[in-house]
Amino acid sequence: MNRRLLLVSNSTLHGGGYLEHCQQHISSFFGKNVKRVLFVPYALHDRDAYTKTARDKFKALGYEVDGIHEAADPVDAVRRAEAVFIALGDVTPAPLFQDGVPYMGSSAGTNVATASISTTNDMPIVYPPSFAAIGLVPFNINPHYLDPDPNSRHMGETRELRITQYHEEPETPSVLGLREGSMLLVEGNKATLLGTTNARLFIRGKKAVEYEPGSDLSFLLTD
Amino acid sequence: MNRRLLLVSNSTLHGGGYLEHCQQHISSFFGKNVKRVLFVPYALHDRDAYTKTARDKFKALGYEVDGIHEAADPVDAVRRAEAVFIALGDVTPAPLFQDGVPYMGSSAGTNVATASISTTNDMPIVYPPSFAAIGLVPFNINPHYLDPDPNSRHMGETRELRITQYHEEPETPSVLGLREGSMLLVEGNKATLLGTTNARLFIRGKKAVEYEPGSDLSFLLTD
Repeated sequence: MNRRLLLVSNSTLHGGGYLEHCQQHISSFFGKNVKRVLFVPYALHDRDAYTKTARDKFKALGYEVDGIHEAADPVDAVRRAEAVFIALGDVTPAPLFQDGVPYMGSSAGTNVATASISTTNDMPIVYPPSFAAIGLVPFNINPHYLDPDPNSRHMGETRELRITQYHEEPETPSVLGLREGSMLLVEGNKATLLGTTNARLFIRGKKAVEYEPGSDLSFLLTD
Repeated sequence: MNRRLLLVSNSTLHGGGYLEHCQQHISSFFGKNVKRVLFVPYALHDRDAYTKTARDKFKALGYEVDGIHEAADPVDAVRRAEAVFIALGDVTPAPLFQDGVPYMGSSAGTNVATASISTTNDMPIVYPPSFAAIGLVPFNINPHYLDPDPNSRHMGETRELRITQYHEEPETPSVLGLREGSMLLVEGNKATLLGTTNARLFIRGKKAVEYEPGSDLSFLLTD
């Protein structure tokens, strides 16, 4: 598969600016050939304001940003895009993304690229046609993955428990917990963990495993 | 409406046993006439183990527990139930609950009784027929409501922000954030906040408001 994906856990890291913690990876991912990035801000009410935030950041990195909501024909805009960035839970039909156009996602925009959106942290606000996602990779991601806080008195379920409950369903895919600060780079059949934090991999029926930045996670692609 | 509901934020409070923090309210809610409580453990894989936990606790309070999964005809079991307790996100058809049978919910079982399940904290694992819930009350609840932690470096969205995003959708109902330790008692057209913690009420387009235990929230029922 001629896929190129940069799947980021979070858009903003504590103490830094918008997309600052991954800006070098963005530059090398989109490279010099990409001039314009199509931004999909459908999931937020104030699309113009959110597009401006992305536009300002990408401009500083040397890329123009087009908001899909500004296009006369949004489907055509996706088909013609040199590159795509989705930061929220917008589901755009899979066929539009299957041709090697670089796809960058962050947060729920990362869920969209995976097998299903079932491991999002968002509340299920808008009823989607299904929980299936684009399927550019055959596993799920949990962005903003959060370790249990040993000092917390809160009895809400931990993220690990929720993922374990997801895996009680038969034939559910593996879930990569991407902590804030980490991201996954996928190029064809090669997947590499980037960033500054470990990721935690949950495979159904097995004990969770930690991976350090730089780890080769290509085995997750051969499902 | 001849409804009787006890909608609890959480089954276990830090430092206490299962349902311990609300046991007095359970006793006065079900009272002396109820002998058997129908327990709905569908959402969890190990239904027998979970039913045993509930059975042991309710037995100590003087009630027998029947697991709905043990019934030959589950629909009939709901129709004949003297009282119902749902602790997880099981959606049982609304008509079965409209006749004044006392309904106790906790956590996602509380979401089930409200207008919609959109303000659950659970991951959207099983694709439901819709996000509509039983609608025994015309508003939503967010159980395990959690205040932002000022010391956290985590950039995931706060609960308040998620509820605000929910209210970006038109005509979405009010959301009562039930902190751990709090519960709502509904009898007919009267709703009272019980427990040991404040609740936080989010009305679309308005500033959130705090309510103390003992507050009369009946105005939420007249929507």
